Amino acid sequence: MEKSDLSHHILSRYNDDLERVRTNVLQMGGLVEEQLKLAVEALVEGDSRLGEQVARGDVKVNAMEVAIDDDCSRILATRSPAASDLRLIVAVIKTITDLERIGDEAEKIGYIGSRLAAVERPADRYRELKHLGRIVGDMVHEALDAFARLDAEGAVAIAKKDRLVDEEYEAIQRQCITFMMEDPRTIRRALDVLWVARALERIGDHAKNVCEYVVYMVYGKDIRHLSLEDVEKHVQSKSQKAAPEGH
Amino acid sequence: MEKSDLSHHILSRYNDDLERVRTNVLQMGGLVEEQLKLAVEALVEGDSRLGEQVARGDVKVNAMEVAIDDDCSRILATRSPAASDLRLIVAVIKTITDLERIGDEAEKIGYIGSRLAAVERPADRYRELKHLGRIVGDMVHEALDAFARLDAEGAVAIAKKDRLVDEEYEAIQRQCITFMMEDPRTIRRALDVLWVARALERIGDHAKNVCEYVVYMVYGKDIRHLSLEDVEKHVQSKSQKAAPEGH
Repeated sequence: MEKSDLSHHILSRYNDDLERVRTNVLQMGGLVEEQLKLAVEALVEGDSRLGEQVARGDVKVNAMEVAIDDDCSRILATRSPAASDLRLIVAVIKTITDLERIGDEAEKIGYIGSRLAAVERPADRYRELKHLGRIVGDMVHEALDAFARLDAEGAVAIAKKDRLVDEEYEAIQRQCITFMMEDPRTIRRALDVLWVARALERIGDHAKNVCEYVVYMVYGKDIRHLSLEDVEKHVQSKSQKAAPEGH
Repeated sequence: MEKSDLSHHILSRYNDDLERVRTNVLQMGGLVEEQLKLAVEALVEGDSRLGEQVARGDVKVNAMEVAIDDDCSRILATRSPAASDLRLIVAVIKTITDLERIGDEAEKIGYIGSRLAAVERPADRYRELKHLGRIVGDMVHEALDAFARLDAEGAVAIAKKDRLVDEEYEAIQRQCITFMMEDPRTIRRALDVLWVARALERIGDHAKNVCEYVVYMVYGKDIRHLSLEDVEKHVQSKSQKAAPEGH
């Protein structure tokens, strides 16, 4: 093999490495999305077996996190990635932590769902959880989409939805407190509803984190702890600058 | 400057880089510990100003996370660390995420503390929170100590304390439910107590995560999602093997 062939060969293997990591993150994300969907379904449908299945399924999510983490460490050690490749790896290391935590929250919802299956279900209240579950499920899905497409502008728009999640969560919390006060016999169940609502709210936070890593990956700017308005301005100015060059 | 001097110089700057990152993590950890201590104090003493001060102080924790993160990315890009140096950097990237989240939980406790300061305090119940606060505060402190001393065996022992935290949290939860059922007028306050207990329980989880990164840093083994007993066996066998070589 000639020298240029060899370096091309090494480069192509390097690109394969990066591509594989990206694909694996999206696969892990897909699994996490499914876990969340099934956990909420188990709760809403009162399906205790499905709830337990979700809770048990979390080991798969954990195994994927460890495998991707190992892969990233290996790439860092053997390829010494720089610039945007390095940002990809760092963003992946962070993203999978959040995906793993989304998996943990889905596991919790699965457990609570299987426990609540034995109790009479108040159709009304779980509808709120179903609604909140759909909002955060969409957020997770869209965040992964933005990750796949390296879409920083989209990521900022998705991150903003976290406010809606917080509002919905606050509303459910107020409602639960009212129910508990009106009828103390509902306290245990109302608390379970509150735990589920809180788990969903946290999933929204994790989805928002993933969106922030997308912006970091694309622009190298760390936007955590900045207001979303500031981030939006930054991303817009960057994409306007990039536009004339056909970006 | 001769060539050997130059490479020595570069190497020494590289060591300075790694040492600085380690020191900064410990500083960030110290700040987070202080935030936690003051947050619990604000709650127990009913000091609303202190609670607000803690809540405002979280920006400092966030700023340290971003700065250390940037530093790690720079070291990865310019020094291409390998083996144990690379594990240090990856462990730091993960550790500061957990420290930042401990800061978030302390911020929450600070807010709740400042809100509860206006309400009559039941001496008994906050004693439980004070007790749980001390346990998790110790865990955080000891986890950072293990990080500083690269003490994997110690880290496993500390991680095991998380079970005690979970038990204490469960006990507080049961007690709160009993109080709420006995007197629905206490529901709001009991929920605040529950939120604080849960925040403390999560801090225990984060301290446990830090311990796991210490083991990873020392032995390169990813112990997340393994049982602590398995990890203990692994660490003991490794340290026995290392002993004859004067480790």
